[in-house]
Amino acid sequence: MIQTHNFKEIVDQYKVVFFDAFGVIKNYMGLVPGMDKTFAYLKEQNKEYYIVTNDASRSPKQLTDSFHKLGLTDICQDHIVSSGMLAKEYLDLKVHQGIVAYLGTANSAHYIESSGLHTLPVSMIDDSNIDQVNALVLLDDEGFDWFRDLTKTVNLLRRRNIPTIVANTDVVYPLNVHDVAIAIGGIATMIENIVGKRFIRFGKPDSQMFMFAYDLVREHRQISKSDILMVGDTLHTDILGGNKFGFDTVLVFTGNTLPADAETRITSTGIVPTYICDTAVAE
Amino acid sequence: MIQTHNFKEIVDQYKVVFFDAFGVIKNYMGLVPGMDKTFAYLKEQNKEYYIVTNDASRSPKQLTDSFHKLGLTDICQDHIVSSGMLAKEYLDLKVHQGIVAYLGTANSAHYIESSGLHTLPVSMIDDSNIDQVNALVLLDDEGFDWFRDLTKTVNLLRRRNIPTIVANTDVVYPLNVHDVAIAIGGIATMIENIVGKRFIRFGKPDSQMFMFAYDLVREHRQISKSDILMVGDTLHTDILGGNKFGFDTVLVFTGNTLPADAETRITSTGIVPTYICDTAVAE
Amino acid sequence: MIQTHNFKEIVDQYKVVFFDAFGVIKNYMGLVPGMDKTFAYLKEQNKEYYIVTNDASRSPKQLTDSFHKLGLTDICQDHIVSSGMLAKEYLDLKVHQGIVAYLGTANSAHYIESSGLHTLPVSMIDDSNIDQVNALVLLDDEGFDWFRDLTKTVNLLRRRNIPTIVANTDVVYPLNVHDVAIAIGGIATMIENIVGKRFIRFGKPDSQMFMFAYDLVREHRQISKSDILMVGDTLHTDILGGNKFGFDTVLVFTGNTLPADAETRITSTGIVPTYICDTAVAE
Amino acid sequence: MIQTHNFKEIVDQYKVVFFDAFGVIKNYMGLVPGMDKTFAYLKEQNKEYYIVTNDASRSPKQLTDSFHKLGLTDICQDHIVSSGMLAKEYLDLKVHQGIVAYLGTANSAHYIESSGLHTLPVSMIDDSNIDQVNALVLLDDEGFDWFRDLTKTVNLLRRRNIPTIVANTDVVYPLNVHDVAIAIGGIATMIENIVGKRFIRFGKPDSQMFMFAYDLVREHRQISKSDILMVGDTLHTDILGGNKFGFDTVLVFTGNTLPADAETRITSTGIVPTYICDTAVAE
Repeated sequence: MIQTHNFKEIVDQYKVVFFDAFGVIKNYMGLVPGMDKTFAYLKEQNKEYYIVTNDASRSPKQLTDSFHKLGLTDICQDHIVSSGMLAKEYLDLKVHQGIVAYLGTANSAHYIESSGLHTLPVSMIDDSNIDQVNALVLLDDEGFDWFRDLTKTVNLLRRRNIPTIVANTDVVYPLNVHDVAIAIGGIATMIENIVGKRFIRFGKPDSQMFMFAYDLVREHRQISKSDILMVGDTLHTDILGGNKFGFDTVLVFTGNTLPADAETRITSTGIVPTYICDTAVAE
Repeated sequence: MIQTHNFKEIVDQYKVVFFDAFGVIKNYMGLVPGMDKTFAYLKEQNKEYYIVTNDASRSPKQLTDSFHKLGLTDICQDHIVSSGMLAKEYLDLKVHQGIVAYLGTANSAHYIESSGLHTLPVSMIDDSNIDQVNALVLLDDEGFDWFRDLTKTVNLLRRRNIPTIVANTDVVYPLNVHDVAIAIGGIATMIENIVGKRFIRFGKPDSQMFMFAYDLVREHRQISKSDILMVGDTLHTDILGGNKFGFDTVLVFTGNTLPADAETRITSTGIVPTYICDTAVAE
Repeated sequence: MIQTHNFKEIVDQYKVVFFDAFGVIKNYMGLVPGMDKTFAYLKEQNKEYYIVTNDASRSPKQLTDSFHKLGLTDICQDHIVSSGMLAKEYLDLKVHQGIVAYLGTANSAHYIESSGLHTLPVSMIDDSNIDQVNALVLLDDEGFDWFRDLTKTVNLLRRRNIPTIVANTDVVYPLNVHDVAIAIGGIATMIENIVGKRFIRFGKPDSQMFMFAYDLVREHRQISKSDILMVGDTLHTDILGGNKFGFDTVLVFTGNTLPADAETRITSTGIVPTYICDTAVAE
Repeated sequence: MIQTHNFKEIVDQYKVVFFDAFGVIKNYMGLVPGMDKTFAYLKEQNKEYYIVTNDASRSPKQLTDSFHKLGLTDICQDHIVSSGMLAKEYLDLKVHQGIVAYLGTANSAHYIESSGLHTLPVSMIDDSNIDQVNALVLLDDEGFDWFRDLTKTVNLLRRRNIPTIVANTDVVYPLNVHDVAIAIGGIATMIENIVGKRFIRFGKPDSQMFMFAYDLVREHRQISKSDILMVGDTLHTDILGGNKFGFDTVLVFTGNTLPADAETRITSTGIVPTYICDTAVAE
């Protein structure tokens, strides 16, 4: 079994901590036990932190509320960086008018609406409005009929040469200790292969996600990448992306990576975290 | 525009003709006009023919009936080679007992049932029977709830290390002149990527499909591969597979490949048919 | 550790045995100890066997000589099925004139020459003869200058829309207990990705390889696929291909798959051999 | 034929311009005719510009010298952002001691040396020093023996679980009007597939490249992404990456994309530049 470090001793060496949400702070059972101590410790030590999450199904406000419900009442909206925020930035900068078609819940779509843009579920695109569709956003695996709307999505992309934004790169997410569900990132790859076009993907391990958070830190202080620690449970997103951006990284065992598999996976992928800890609990 | 050949003059040079079904003999509008003349000519000339189709949604009997309804009454069950027949051969040879789970219609599953095997839709697999599942077969894109059953399929493959057979390699199929639908082959690739396991695929361009048909010919006569002509509308399946197996090939324009795109596609893929004809109508 | 079977007891249940060569009969140290007993036993029991190998670097005659040097003097040329033989069949059937350019040794190219065809190493293709090049064959990783000739190969394929045949699908081969070398199959994938064209690959796991051997058996006897056993050391070629074709399969530990990794690899790939044996030694 | 815009009129709408180097400013024949006028115009208008290039074969100083030799004497080292600079930043932040093995010229390696790190060509790695190798960097396609050193590279990565940095993502580069050469990015993909590990790639279309340049601009002024224009000749790197980062983009026809192919390529890839110009000449 792999030798693990004490999380508190590692955190002490850094000025800012970035956390993945699912599999680190919470999982399908609720709060990861003890994580309230981590945020209390960060507050006590006056250390800055951000939650950097591949989640476009909810707005930053809703994500914050979900942490409050778990008892993490110090986490505020300014601490959240989600892949949905990058999708919104893209639309603000690059799509100035017309319809943005989407796959996901109405709730997820509400957040990405910008002035001048009108969001519409793929199910409501037809011959009367298809010519006004100027972007497609894949937000969430829920909120639509897969059979009907995935076929509609393929045909929309055959008729309209528009940017397609994938706001969550995860291919699956855990439902319980045994089972997973197919995430919108997995569906996106199928559609991309079918239509042969290049989609625009936001979310770890992509650098733009880390840059968004890094920019938030730099708004009010000077900081080096070597002062920031990225904490995650997934080698291919949190650790690969964090390493590449230049951060030191911590792999924890409260989510996708199990202690028994860690060594094999690290060796077979070549993705090596700076540290390994059982949990991100600071005690 | 590309120079095309007269189909009758080409057919005259071969002893046996293999036809793709969809896009060559029929399409979403019904019989390709004039194809009745082709089969009359083949009969008159006493030339042997087979219909070699990536279709596992129906039994050979049902496929034959569908040709009869189009007026091609000479086509009998012995002329049909479908990817579903290869899936059935695999199960007969390799899976001797237990449950075969499937995605597709009850109709498609009925045909692959063998003695000792029991077919069950993925939707009906649960904790009580999952340990008896010894194979999974992906047959058709209809007959199940995509959202519920694709997730169930992923979790079945996470728990049981069983062979997965994909009985149709096509990723899309045409619905009408504009639109396509996602075929089970496209869904299979998504699931394969998610679970990271290697599936067993039957259907053109795979050689086993051509071998199955070639064996039928050789049951009653001696023949060289150079005496057989493969006719298809799709470069990546009919033409690539036919070429590789050693057959001469004809590309026709009544299906997936349009005259205006043919030259670009042939050059960009490097898949070069021996001949190009507007249609497979012999007149 | 995985439970293994006695090879002799398994062989007794089949009429015909197909063996992979490298990793089963021989490896980088020479004959796998005891394999002479296997061939003596097969002779004694009057069981038919074939050696089915992804090797296009040598002719069947040269492959036979290499077995004789190892003391397996009963193996004759009729027992050999190599991917090079499929490449030769393809050229015989499909390319009737002009130049066949190749990457490999002069020796490997000599074997694929057919009447009417002239083989020429890629290094000797220039403006004076490029228009006569009607096929490209990738035979071996030796016999050419990688830097100069791989670039020449890319540019040849940009100028001439010709079939490219890859006569060995392996990506690496073992040099010694630690190290591997890059095989021509690995190079082929790089070139294919760069030029964007579809190559024609011969070699396990492709069905055409198994069919070639199966046809040899059927030339002189009636046999069912269920009477044939495929023995190999590699899950992705021998076992996947053998299973798919409908054969029962044996995984042995004298080559690419180590006893300690076998269970993990079988689970992670979903490629399940019918049996596992330490070696293919019959005693 | 596609309708193009006047480059000067477009530049007038932006405060900062990012240029790709090869295919925009220069090509295999030297300076793209008229590009001296562009840099004169930018100076006259007091517009800031950066050259953002997937080139790790030379240091920023050497890249600057190459522009000076073409007569673009105003371009200074501060205007250059190369993928080699990101590789160097990574090593500075993440690899603190030992040997950095490399593929490329001694010249390219000299630049990435940091305090505490020692660079060594892959050819010089052997049993005596392999345990000190803490990173591998793929810099250039020249400076090593492909046959010998690519095999050594594969075996190095099988023995040492170290980060591999690919400092140029291009798969080919043009040699002349007809021919291309295989770039280190193409070789990197082959090695990555063979060893099965995830490499760290720097270079367009990756966001980190654009962020590096964007940070340089923001060091001395406040600016929005919407004030920056990215100019390039390649859809998959310059335009895809620029669009995703939130910049407006210009595709020019002086490099990889020809006027006759532009429309087909834009439609088939779904990568749509904001503008299309014949050249980046401002007149």
